[in-house]
Amino acid sequence: MAHPVSPLAPKTYPELPEVPGARFATAEAGIKYKNRTDVLLVALDPGTSVAGVFTRSKCPSAAVDWCRQNLGGGAARGLVVNSGNANAFTGSKGRESVQKTAEIAARALGCGTGEIFLASTGVIGEPLDASKFEGVLDNLAGRLVSSPWMDPAKAIMTTDTFPKVATATVEIDGVEVVISGIAKGSGMIAPDMATMLSFVFTDAAIAAPVLQSLLAEQVRPSFNSITVDSDTSTSDTLMAFATGKAAERGVAPIESVEDPRAAVFGEALGDVLYELAMLVVRDGEGATKFVTVNVEGATSDESAFRIAKSIADSPLVKTAIAGGDANWGRVVMAVGKAGEPADRDRLSIRFGDLVVAEQGERSPGYDEAATSAYMRQEDLEIGVALGLGEGRATVYTCDLTHGYIAINGDYRS
Amino acid sequence: MAHPVSPLAPKTYPELPEVPGARFATAEAGIKYKNRTDVLLVALDPGTSVAGVFTRSKCPSAAVDWCRQNLGGGAARGLVVNSGNANAFTGSKGRESVQKTAEIAARALGCGTGEIFLASTGVIGEPLDASKFEGVLDNLAGRLVSSPWMDPAKAIMTTDTFPKVATATVEIDGVEVVISGIAKGSGMIAPDMATMLSFVFTDAAIAAPVLQSLLAEQVRPSFNSITVDSDTSTSDTLMAFATGKAAERGVAPIESVEDPRAAVFGEALGDVLYELAMLVVRDGEGATKFVTVNVEGATSDESAFRIAKSIADSPLVKTAIAGGDANWGRVVMAVGKAGEPADRDRLSIRFGDLVVAEQGERSPGYDEAATSAYMRQEDLEIGVALGLGEGRATVYTCDLTHGYIAINGDYRS
Repeated sequence: MAHPVSPLAPKTYPELPEVPGARFATAEAGIKYKNRTDVLLVALDPGTSVAGVFTRSKCPSAAVDWCRQNLGGGAARGLVVNSGNANAFTGSKGRESVQKTAEIAARALGCGTGEIFLASTGVIGEPLDASKFEGVLDNLAGRLVSSPWMDPAKAIMTTDTFPKVATATVEIDGVEVVISGIAKGSGMIAPDMATMLSFVFTDAAIAAPVLQSLLAEQVRPSFNSITVDSDTSTSDTLMAFATGKAAERGVAPIESVEDPRAAVFGEALGDVLYELAMLVVRDGEGATKFVTVNVEGATSDESAFRIAKSIADSPLVKTAIAGGDANWGRVVMAVGKAGEPADRDRLSIRFGDLVVAEQGERSPGYDEAATSAYMRQEDLEIGVALGLGEGRATVYTCDLTHGYIAINGDYRS
Repeated sequence: MAHPVSPLAPKTYPELPEVPGARFATAEAGIKYKNRTDVLLVALDPGTSVAGVFTRSKCPSAAVDWCRQNLGGGAARGLVVNSGNANAFTGSKGRESVQKTAEIAARALGCGTGEIFLASTGVIGEPLDASKFEGVLDNLAGRLVSSPWMDPAKAIMTTDTFPKVATATVEIDGVEVVISGIAKGSGMIAPDMATMLSFVFTDAAIAAPVLQSLLAEQVRPSFNSITVDSDTSTSDTLMAFATGKAAERGVAPIESVEDPRAAVFGEALGDVLYELAMLVVRDGEGATKFVTVNVEGATSDESAFRIAKSIADSPLVKTAIAGGDANWGRVVMAVGKAGEPADRDRLSIRFGDLVVAEQGERSPGYDEAATSAYMRQEDLEIGVALGLGEGRATVYTCDLTHGYIAINGDYRS
């Protein structure tokens, strides 16, 4: 919280509606931070199905291991999230801590440990003392509420400078069902499966395998298409919980991905994930510019994605944007280093609508003044056309500034 | 030159001996910089063999294309290098500029254009007007000298804060032959074949194919094992020129890689390349720390290299080092994101001789004070042992500081 709020923070936040079947409470457990909430308990009614996607890191946190193991059961009754300590690379102590936390939560909620999901975010390598949760979770279970969702969003923040929430409603069987989500993330953002932490809740009735399939599909254009600093976390966790309470209002459960209602729900879920992912980029550590990188004309969508990621991850591109410098030569460099098919002499590059380079050289119509004026805007687009095929991809990122260095030069201490 | 000299700059420079058969001159052509030399002409005696390795960028500069094409001839008579303009992504204008520059140089030196090699470094995308070389190269050809080598090293600098030279002598057939090299490079350094620009000269008599083989072998542990910012240039060029003049002193030409003298020469060549590569890291944009990343116990050398590169390229690892923060959790993160085989619970990490983590958690003997004291040093080592196999690799890098942002936020303008 020591750092100023991102200039890219939204001016207003939506008020998230209650999600029938999901209640929560937050507390100050003093895990690392002082004078702010750092523990979140979400209680889910019986019948809640669950899905999740996690970091592809080879060194995942103890909580990620735990969630992966429990996901097979397909049912959730509780979610415990703490900030300030990632419980990652904490060895057998980490596994014991996770087990004990789940036991405390299961007792508090009256369910089995196999229905408890956990996430931790903060410093890596510091043992997390589960006894800190001992009195706290019982207390939280005694004061569960259905709103406001801003409270859970705040409790899971680390270097975030603003809370991240998004919501959508979707009509199924003529009944409105709710999808609401929260997220945290600011640095160590190059999700290879999900982002730091994000949790989405719905009262729709959806079988766990269907929910899993929809989540895996929608994570690609949202959380898997953002990067702040190319660093992938040990703790990336995105989970969706469907309480099924809408069934009481006449919505039949969605039991198959072939059910046409699955696609309708999936699209709304995608909208929520996309909004949350964009908020993570807008809170990228030190960010002053939001950048959309659009690549088209690649030999495949995968190739386009790797080229877009190469541009979005390039320190030289990101520092040029921070400096308001229309340095499209660095975009050429980043296309070239991606290792994907590219033909220098067919390549064209634009900033917004301004074509700066085409057919392998500076555009004849290049206008330095107009381009510089464009670069002073807060939301920028870099467009690259390769002229080779139909592959396209979009990646979202932010600039690289002194703020990033200041935040990360002394985060742990 | 506006930026202060790197604190990692060497305190003294070796005086490079003359290389019989190689003479040079430099000039101020005013390509971009004012009041400094920016053009180098090296004249090589008839009989000089040549070898080169270049960027793997898919968008190489016009000069790189030119050198690749001429390399087949195996013979060199002239090298022209300019700083201030990379002549990259300049389309047909770039090709014409290269052709014209070669013609001017060939005329000045009395040789064919196929024996002229070219390199350009500086801004990408700006057309390079070859007519600037018109009078200049003739003038340079008229005042060629054999020393001091510091002059060519200075003429090829861009954002470098100090010139880079290295030398070695090696005894072949009882006669001392000389190997001397120069390099430039500071940012956009993640060579995937060579570094920005480096040229090595020797009076040894070595057939071009042998020289090429030795150069390709020695580039891996030197220029291909360094990274400043993970950005690979369009213009990376490393060339070696062997004038063969040592034959006049009784050294028989090396015609085959099986010749035992090839290995002796190769080792000395490797020493020069290694020294030059380390100087590039020490002049990394904004660098205040020199970092050696040693990875061992990987499933293969290639796997170890990719993990070491992942650590050395991580913005979060590099900012922690800048802040003197022994944040080994970020090293875990970087190992995990590399996508290579790793077992969290066998992993151990050390800073210098201080073991900070072992068997998947913080070391029982971890000493925060001692580790923090170590992190204040200028030359640091990060050691990672994976405990899986015999694969090992070393990558050299520097920290990521406010200086990098300051240098790159407005380089072009």
